[in-house]
Amino acid sequence: MHSIRGDERVVIAAVGVGDVTHCLESLEAAPGVESAVRISAPYKFVSREYKAEKSEIRVDGASFGGGEFTVIAGPCSVENEKQLMTTAIAVARSGARLLRGGAFKPRTSPYDFQGLEEEGLKLLRKARQETGLSIITEVMSDRDVDLVAEYADVVQVGARNMQNFALLKSPGKVGKPVMLKRGLSSTIKELLLSAEYVTSHGNPEVILCERGIRTFETATRNTLDIGAVPLLNELTHLPVVLDPAHATGKSSLIPALARAAVAVGADGLMVEVHPCPEEAFSDGAQSLTFEQFDELMRGLRPYLELWREQRRAVMAS
Amino acid sequence: MHSIRGDERVVIAAVGVGDVTHCLESLEAAPGVESAVRISAPYKFVSREYKAEKSEIRVDGASFGGGEFTVIAGPCSVENEKQLMTTAIAVARSGARLLRGGAFKPRTSPYDFQGLEEEGLKLLRKARQETGLSIITEVMSDRDVDLVAEYADVVQVGARNMQNFALLKSPGKVGKPVMLKRGLSSTIKELLLSAEYVTSHGNPEVILCERGIRTFETATRNTLDIGAVPLLNELTHLPVVLDPAHATGKSSLIPALARAAVAVGADGLMVEVHPCPEEAFSDGAQSLTFEQFDELMRGLRPYLELWREQRRAVMAS
Amino acid sequence: MHSIRGDERVVIAAVGVGDVTHCLESLEAAPGVESAVRISAPYKFVSREYKAEKSEIRVDGASFGGGEFTVIAGPCSVENEKQLMTTAIAVARSGARLLRGGAFKPRTSPYDFQGLEEEGLKLLRKARQETGLSIITEVMSDRDVDLVAEYADVVQVGARNMQNFALLKSPGKVGKPVMLKRGLSSTIKELLLSAEYVTSHGNPEVILCERGIRTFETATRNTLDIGAVPLLNELTHLPVVLDPAHATGKSSLIPALARAAVAVGADGLMVEVHPCPEEAFSDGAQSLTFEQFDELMRGLRPYLELWREQRRAVMAS
Amino acid sequence: MHSIRGDERVVIAAVGVGDVTHCLESLEAAPGVESAVRISAPYKFVSREYKAEKSEIRVDGASFGGGEFTVIAGPCSVENEKQLMTTAIAVARSGARLLRGGAFKPRTSPYDFQGLEEEGLKLLRKARQETGLSIITEVMSDRDVDLVAEYADVVQVGARNMQNFALLKSPGKVGKPVMLKRGLSSTIKELLLSAEYVTSHGNPEVILCERGIRTFETATRNTLDIGAVPLLNELTHLPVVLDPAHATGKSSLIPALARAAVAVGADGLMVEVHPCPEEAFSDGAQSLTFEQFDELMRGLRPYLELWREQRRAVMAS
Repeated sequence: MHSIRGDERVVIAAVGVGDVTHCLESLEAAPGVESAVRISAPYKFVSREYKAEKSEIRVDGASFGGGEFTVIAGPCSVENEKQLMTTAIAVARSGARLLRGGAFKPRTSPYDFQGLEEEGLKLLRKARQETGLSIITEVMSDRDVDLVAEYADVVQVGARNMQNFALLKSPGKVGKPVMLKRGLSSTIKELLLSAEYVTSHGNPEVILCERGIRTFETATRNTLDIGAVPLLNELTHLPVVLDPAHATGKSSLIPALARAAVAVGADGLMVEVHPCPEEAFSDGAQSLTFEQFDELMRGLRPYLELWREQRRAVMAS
Repeated sequence: MHSIRGDERVVIAAVGVGDVTHCLESLEAAPGVESAVRISAPYKFVSREYKAEKSEIRVDGASFGGGEFTVIAGPCSVENEKQLMTTAIAVARSGARLLRGGAFKPRTSPYDFQGLEEEGLKLLRKARQETGLSIITEVMSDRDVDLVAEYADVVQVGARNMQNFALLKSPGKVGKPVMLKRGLSSTIKELLLSAEYVTSHGNPEVILCERGIRTFETATRNTLDIGAVPLLNELTHLPVVLDPAHATGKSSLIPALARAAVAVGADGLMVEVHPCPEEAFSDGAQSLTFEQFDELMRGLRPYLELWREQRRAVMAS
Repeated sequence: MHSIRGDERVVIAAVGVGDVTHCLESLEAAPGVESAVRISAPYKFVSREYKAEKSEIRVDGASFGGGEFTVIAGPCSVENEKQLMTTAIAVARSGARLLRGGAFKPRTSPYDFQGLEEEGLKLLRKARQETGLSIITEVMSDRDVDLVAEYADVVQVGARNMQNFALLKSPGKVGKPVMLKRGLSSTIKELLLSAEYVTSHGNPEVILCERGIRTFETATRNTLDIGAVPLLNELTHLPVVLDPAHATGKSSLIPALARAAVAVGADGLMVEVHPCPEEAFSDGAQSLTFEQFDELMRGLRPYLELWREQRRAVMAS
Repeated sequence: MHSIRGDERVVIAAVGVGDVTHCLESLEAAPGVESAVRISAPYKFVSREYKAEKSEIRVDGASFGGGEFTVIAGPCSVENEKQLMTTAIAVARSGARLLRGGAFKPRTSPYDFQGLEEEGLKLLRKARQETGLSIITEVMSDRDVDLVAEYADVVQVGARNMQNFALLKSPGKVGKPVMLKRGLSSTIKELLLSAEYVTSHGNPEVILCERGIRTFETATRNTLDIGAVPLLNELTHLPVVLDPAHATGKSSLIPALARAAVAVGADGLMVEVHPCPEEAFSDGAQSLTFEQFDELMRGLRPYLELWREQRRAVMAS
């Protein structure tokens, strides 16, 4: 039994099995009850049936799911202070609202750079102090959730951990929004059920991220499933962010896909920016230079105008 | 040995194997030769190395790859005169430039509607006479290419025939542009090599169409590979059209994906429109009503403005 | 309305839509009618509901679906007389019953070897005369079905043409069995519906071939879906052959997979054999030498003993 | 720097980057050094280059990779004492050597049965005491590795956690073999690199398990990649087990695929057995009854004879 207390009404959710037709009638007859509905989707708290209007998740001054399209930028990995600070200053100047950067890195090979861990988290905190950017960074184990949440404004659960259910159960305690990235071969339904793990364990603030799925195609690293955005908008009230860098692995494709992300109605965008992509410890081929990111942001402006108009129309209706 | 005669110069292409470094030097030394280059891509005529500027393929008044974004609309199948005529009139009024409609239908089951065949082609011709729309329709066998080309302005090779090499070799004779749809599990490289079959057999006018690829995801019929558009723009000079209806199988997702198609820089869009989608002989779930199509076209207008600006900038550079 | 005349009874099949419960009752009441049943599968003639016992398709002395496991071997492409004859003699000596060899080759690139066409068919006929092997070879267009059927004992429809419906409709006339290879991204249901195209157009003799499907895995060329064999055995009475060469693209994996093909209960095996794989015009990496093929066949013997026992038990039950 | 001390020699492994040609020569010149080799594969300890003969991993009386094919059987989830004990007794009688059963269950939905946790582990211990079967059970978080290893003889890392790198780093301390299941969309290379995480963090005893990969096909739950077995046998010395139940999700397909697993040269088999599959808390559709499992084991016997012969030949060579 969970409850969500809003300004005008309180929603009480009861999860269970069995035929509830009879219960619904008795509940609706009870005093103070406006209506009792059955949520047919396998995911409950995250479904549009549970909450019709889009959720706005606030992160300091920025937000996802509200009236602004929010851009997250930064290096794949936090490598050192200079790399992080120069990047943070550059992306803030160009209009990003959150700084990304991995301190705990999920790497396919044990011999690849595994991240600076707490040292990296401290650098991220310093970058926030200097630039005012909010921080999003990944957590890889339920052991580290408290530590990461101490430094981060948004805690990221990466694609490889989308079905790490021990991890999904843990961010309930920490009171920070979670960005949940879709697994490389996870269906939309599985993504929503993983989000349901987080919400049903006490943390309603989940931002979804489509970052490309694994297909037979090898010309790009993965395939950006852009159709997931309007589909998720039908199925869930949670905000949705697109990550075209991991989706394609090619920095030259990112500006066009960023425009598409705005036009398709995503709530935000995540891109990788590095002072010198060819020297990056990870993901260099898909990272933008400062100049490329600035150009991308300028190119997005007229599309963001259209986005805001459309969003205002939706929010007014 | 093939040659392409333009206004200012003639391109002569020699296809073969072996080390050509020496040949190139002697060729460049020959009188009247401006330059001799080796094309390293496995596809030759369709590569950007062969032709740096985007090809514009004209179809009566409309074109693909030029200064306008071109919309193709119409029913999945030509069912009868009334269905086709009302649809043609409606889509023309809303701004489509080509009418689609299948007379030969590739259907998974032999017990499904197989199309009106030549009778359908005659109805398409009639629709062109009444509305001025150009006609695009599918051909399924090299036996029927002459027949289809007699009625169609653009001959479509469908996804299931993308590697029907006997068919790909045949449209060279007919002098009509070909729209080649990407196979359900075909790579970008295979798509370009199939286009190369058409061009190397004498027909340089190929329009590519990304219509969704088959992945593990079942929430949508297929997965629209929108990243294919900027990638193809790097690799080939051929125009690229997006088909979000076949990609997703859900009409409710089409308006958002149509905006994305414009923003990502595609050259055109193909959608299915039917007077009464729930009664369509095929693909009803992904067809738009006349009203939905009109609303889609109106919603695209501001995005098309941005598209034209961007295209002018590219063409000027 | 189709009918199949057997020794003891005649099966009459009526294909159509609508509720047939009432019809079935009146039909069963008619004189000479043993029973009337509704086939619920989308494919009719090929379903186990239509025919409970496995179909045996005879090809000269050999057969598929009967009491012997049948091996097809030969080069990917017919290249010249010497290559074909030496291969035919070698594979016949090692125990193959059919000779494969492509005269019409579906090649991804128009610049790759396209096959010797009728010249290749003539060489195949010569190889049959010399060795007694039956011939299986591919047809790529409905235009060529008559020509190919004149030379071949089994006409192959390749994976890329599994949904070339114009082609599927054509072998009905030619009176030769068809081997239908599963498309690279075709579902089992689509494979059976394509087989239904052939059977419903008059040719009941279809052999199915699983040859690997396209997945995200790149370590092998495709992924052999061995589970398709027992699944097809439940759904259809048609015989099923496995092709581990195209499935994996690596000759070193073929002996182990050939044993698995026997153990899993397939009806036959298709492998590629070439006198000198590294000089093959196509598919060299997955071709066996004569020695490797002979060793494979000797290694299969004890497994074939178990296969025959198991088959006798099934046929007796 | 890692070292492995054998009976006759000590292997010292140095992991790093850079050109090592010169180092190798000086090392080989050093006293007591037999040879110094560079391992080119991205995975080191698990590669055949590092260790040419197959590793045998002993689990009490049983083993993987040695002279016997080892069968693991048991319920998907430990549900209660009666269910587990009756199953353990039945599978032991039919010839299984290890008992599987989940106490921590990775379930797609938070509303599905999540396992009995430590209570389940205690029941597994009791089953071992009663039957002599060794126990394999899954761990889902690095937090629980010590707990699970206290009860289990083999610690399983499930498919959804194959790239949970925090978890992979942890079993080094516990001194129990690890069974690593391939992720639903993980490549062979990624599987081996995940195994390398375990070995490079101090635990050389890793058993690999192919349990089906996610493809476009929906007729089976996943697609068993049987070609992975001979391929892994070329690339790694680690033993490989096949799990046809998770691969297909259909119990009727399991006997045929179990035969194929033996014939293809796997080192073992994992199947799900439940006293009453239709009442199972999870995976009922792919579970065998006691009778079906017994019949499967009897059907395997002649194939196991062939397997042992072949294994003896390989081990002697």
